[in-house]
Amino acid sequence: MAIVTVIGATTWGNTIGKLLVKKGIPVNIWARTEARARELNEEQENLAANNDLIKYLSFTNDIDAALKSSEFVIMGIPAQSLRQTARTINDHITSNMVLVSLSKGLEAETGKRMSEIIPEEITSTSSEKICILSGPNLSQEIKQGLPATTILASRNDDIAQRARDLFHSPNFAVFTSNDVVGTELCGALKNVIALGAGMVDGLQLGENAKATLITMGWNEVTSLGISLGAQLSTFYGLAGLGDLITTCAGNLSRNHYVGFEVATGLPLEEVKTSMINIAEGIDTTLAVNRLANKLGQKMPIINIIYKVLFGELPPSEISESFKQGLNPQANI
Amino acid sequence: MAIVTVIGATTWGNTIGKLLVKKGIPVNIWARTEARARELNEEQENLAANNDLIKYLSFTNDIDAALKSSEFVIMGIPAQSLRQTARTINDHITSNMVLVSLSKGLEAETGKRMSEIIPEEITSTSSEKICILSGPNLSQEIKQGLPATTILASRNDDIAQRARDLFHSPNFAVFTSNDVVGTELCGALKNVIALGAGMVDGLQLGENAKATLITMGWNEVTSLGISLGAQLSTFYGLAGLGDLITTCAGNLSRNHYVGFEVATGLPLEEVKTSMINIAEGIDTTLAVNRLANKLGQKMPIINIIYKVLFGELPPSEISESFKQGLNPQANI
Repeated sequence: MAIVTVIGATTWGNTIGKLLVKKGIPVNIWARTEARARELNEEQENLAANNDLIKYLSFTNDIDAALKSSEFVIMGIPAQSLRQTARTINDHITSNMVLVSLSKGLEAETGKRMSEIIPEEITSTSSEKICILSGPNLSQEIKQGLPATTILASRNDDIAQRARDLFHSPNFAVFTSNDVVGTELCGALKNVIALGAGMVDGLQLGENAKATLITMGWNEVTSLGISLGAQLSTFYGLAGLGDLITTCAGNLSRNHYVGFEVATGLPLEEVKTSMINIAEGIDTTLAVNRLANKLGQKMPIINIIYKVLFGELPPSEISESFKQGLNPQANI
Repeated sequence: MAIVTVIGATTWGNTIGKLLVKKGIPVNIWARTEARARELNEEQENLAANNDLIKYLSFTNDIDAALKSSEFVIMGIPAQSLRQTARTINDHITSNMVLVSLSKGLEAETGKRMSEIIPEEITSTSSEKICILSGPNLSQEIKQGLPATTILASRNDDIAQRARDLFHSPNFAVFTSNDVVGTELCGALKNVIALGAGMVDGLQLGENAKATLITMGWNEVTSLGISLGAQLSTFYGLAGLGDLITTCAGNLSRNHYVGFEVATGLPLEEVKTSMINIAEGIDTTLAVNRLANKLGQKMPIINIIYKVLFGELPPSEISESFKQGLNPQANI
């Protein structure tokens, strides 16, 4: 029986950990502080009805204990913390461990994907050992046992199949892919499009304009992906279109909230102060803008989202800027 | 100045007619009965504030008067009525007229697209003279002057450009395409996917499952399109993904309503009786099922939608059928 370690007792990390525990797989979840690990262990012991969880799941702040005999290491942490956390666990990772990234973001300073950062910071791994799990996965629904699908991407087909078999469950259908670049870009960049969708809603431009922004924006993302070596079909598969739809369709995502508030004139710093959790799309917008500039890739819709987000347009010009962006041939 | 005739005083036909009138283009709208034409003319005269409408727009039941000197004939009628209406107007169409189809559906009995039916019934036209207008276009928003985009498709580039210039406005960005087949299939088949999205909502399977159904279903539609000679990019452009998002994202579409009610156990005939307007997706589901069978094209998601819609599954099996359809590899 494989032993699994989840690095980061985040909402999504815990959800994935519990999904595995329900399959009878022993899971250690590493929390950042001893207090947090203790709190989560106690919480769990109080759930007396759910015996499986008590038997197979334990939270710990001891990184050595957490990773001991582990076969799969699941990185369940926000994208901007990944590099630092990878450094922290580096000494405890052995070359036989498979690493699975759950993060949906790009590093703000470098535009790098998670599968690029991990081998830079973890000396005993290689890109062959890295997997990406990404798809239309609202964690609340997966906790409830509602059906969902996802993509498990790895460069190495055998590793992909092993990791796929680990996660696959009757209510969580896991499909393999060898497009690591595309799968990561999809998960990261749909958050940027969700920011834009929130902006269009904040400006009350309507559903037609929102669908246009999502479509044009996603085509820009796809072109960027292709030029980075990703596969077209990934952007229109479950990790792409699927995740885009769950994130952009409702008004529930944190990124949508940020876009909405910023478009109506609230400065980004104030919006951030009002939030408990991080909206991954903010830093990823910085990252993709840097990446586009570096590659000389034209991304006009993403560029409007960037300018509005970081206050580079006067509030009075925001609405007009979107209208022009959605109608680049308007002057007839 | 071009004279435009809209055939069919439908919601969308009237909206497009009024959009043109606002550009100063004279528009005749042909209504099915004299009473309806009179009613619409009176309604309009009462809108005293809007002088342009009074000057350039007239409703009539006289097909000869409606089409006299017309340069563009816009077919604004439901897909299942198109053949009959085309027969009715056949004698009044001349070979110089450009025909624009607004219908989003396939003929139930034959699986044919609107651009296939028109030249079968209108003797003096050719497929070169036919255009398709389709995109993320909720008519209510276009009436309000909110920004929108759409695709104008024609096999003939000059005709496409002329028709594009006719419709293009600051708040209605029209992009040309030469993919008639793809543009028509997108407009028709997103209604079938919306039926499925409604079903998933009716079964309370959640947003993850709904995004999965939309993604898998749209990939089936895309494959069908490719085998019929359509272009891949159309399915991920404004007429494809754009229209799919406006139709499936909210719960407002008639097709979503039908899917929702049928999935919760109400027979289709009862649902239809409860509706004033037609849900185009119903007949188009019949059509696409026939088309898939004829071509030997596997469309498992579309097939579940078809079976649920036409009562071929006992209500107790509907939920399980969707879960299996979304997780074809579940048995591990």
